[in-house]
Amino acid sequence: MIQYNEFFREKFLFNTIPKNQIKYISQLKQKKNRTEEKKFLVEGEKNVIALYHNTRYIIETLIIHPSFLAKHKKIIQSLSIKKIWLGDAVVLSRLGHLTTNYQIIAVVKMPIVEKLIIPKNSCTLVLDNIQDPGNLGTILRTACWYGIQTVICSKNTVELYNPKVIQASMGAIAQLSVHYVHLSNFFTQHNTLPILGACPQGTPLTTIDLPDSFFLVIGNESHGIHPEHIPYIHQKIAIPKYGIGNSLNAGIATAVICHHWRIKQTPLI
Amino acid sequence: MIQYNEFFREKFLFNTIPKNQIKYISQLKQKKNRTEEKKFLVEGEKNVIALYHNTRYIIETLIIHPSFLAKHKKIIQSLSIKKIWLGDAVVLSRLGHLTTNYQIIAVVKMPIVEKLIIPKNSCTLVLDNIQDPGNLGTILRTACWYGIQTVICSKNTVELYNPKVIQASMGAIAQLSVHYVHLSNFFTQHNTLPILGACPQGTPLTTIDLPDSFFLVIGNESHGIHPEHIPYIHQKIAIPKYGIGNSLNAGIATAVICHHWRIKQTPLI
Repeated sequence: MIQYNEFFREKFLFNTIPKNQIKYISQLKQKKNRTEEKKFLVEGEKNVIALYHNTRYIIETLIIHPSFLAKHKKIIQSLSIKKIWLGDAVVLSRLGHLTTNYQIIAVVKMPIVEKLIIPKNSCTLVLDNIQDPGNLGTILRTACWYGIQTVICSKNTVELYNPKVIQASMGAIAQLSVHYVHLSNFFTQHNTLPILGACPQGTPLTTIDLPDSFFLVIGNESHGIHPEHIPYIHQKIAIPKYGIGNSLNAGIATAVICHHWRIKQTPLI
Repeated sequence: MIQYNEFFREKFLFNTIPKNQIKYISQLKQKKNRTEEKKFLVEGEKNVIALYHNTRYIIETLIIHPSFLAKHKKIIQSLSIKKIWLGDAVVLSRLGHLTTNYQIIAVVKMPIVEKLIIPKNSCTLVLDNIQDPGNLGTILRTACWYGIQTVICSKNTVELYNPKVIQASMGAIAQLSVHYVHLSNFFTQHNTLPILGACPQGTPLTTIDLPDSFFLVIGNESHGIHPEHIPYIHQKIAIPKYGIGNSLNAGIATAVICHHWRIKQTPLI
């Protein structure tokens, strides 16, 4: 059994969270404060560990549940930061958004945005006004799974550092290069690769030969791809429907197209 | 322009919502009250219209935004119910869960659960302890798209009538036959069809020949298929990974497997 008090006396200055820290962390729930402070909150074991392993992300503060400490003592010991406190479920649930499985909350510095590189021989995702943070997080997690490296977001897409995006991404933000751009300008500057757009009225995915390298545009949950961006789309693609429905969830559409692209490269038996 | 006052005087008794109705609707946000009253709340244009067109669902009360009335006057006129009130964004946002696009909230009677029929020549979804209501809703919407008719849920899967499930399902609950069962008993009674389970350690989906008719088991978001149910699985299947990640979102996994099953029936070009 870990002797918490001894461990904390040895390594850290405090083992109760100062009130001003609770206040500081709480205000990072709001976008304007995150933007001003250039810091964001990360919750949950997998997410925090994914960011810990990426040198671009600097963890500044940690509130950890005793169960996290018991499981990941080495990680905690390896950190040179002073702001680590033990927190119970009450504190963690108050500071975070999760409703179960409280383990850890981290305050992380936003990294400098990397240089935009469009990878060759890959699909690059382009998100046009994705509004639901859970959807954006799921899309990033899916993009990572299918080996996508770069994700372009329209300026009106939900903020990358929204805690619900981070949560749903399950660590994917540590793996991806995500850029917020003015989409019309972006399309004008990057028109050498095919631009494919997911549209219910498009050509069925199963009847076209997906290129190895392309932009895949996924539109807003209610309104699809913005009419201003439609002229830039070289090919509209649709996911074949075998039942009933008007559309699929944006994350689902992304996954099905990515899967289809990958199995086309490595055909079915 | 519609003359709201005239329209309401002619057809309905009230045009302001009585306080006791607001109270009644609000308490249906809680599961125990929904279960007691055998009623649930439906929000949003598409969801309410989908249920309106299905005779199994009886709409009891409607709070509508003037914009919904303007767009769907015929639907409102066709209803024989007395409890219809106009509501502004303040009332609709207070009674519902949506954060934008307030149009309509309906109180709907829970239908009697249909006889459980396992369709031949189809995939039947089996959900083992899906906890996130958004995930369950998205899975139902996806199931509908891929022509699945029956969905089996373990007793500990999130409630079908949770407003977030209804919202994310985008009307799919009106199309599907959903049953909550004791899963071990169910598997014992229905072992004549192949039972396939989505597992990260399974055989890659791309290397197996999916049957035309099978059960597809999707496990809990954090813990996968419950160890008690693993012995009933005839074949574990995995979604090939081309990048990085430990797992995919439960809805994403469902969609990719369903897509793969359908394109296997209608092969790729």
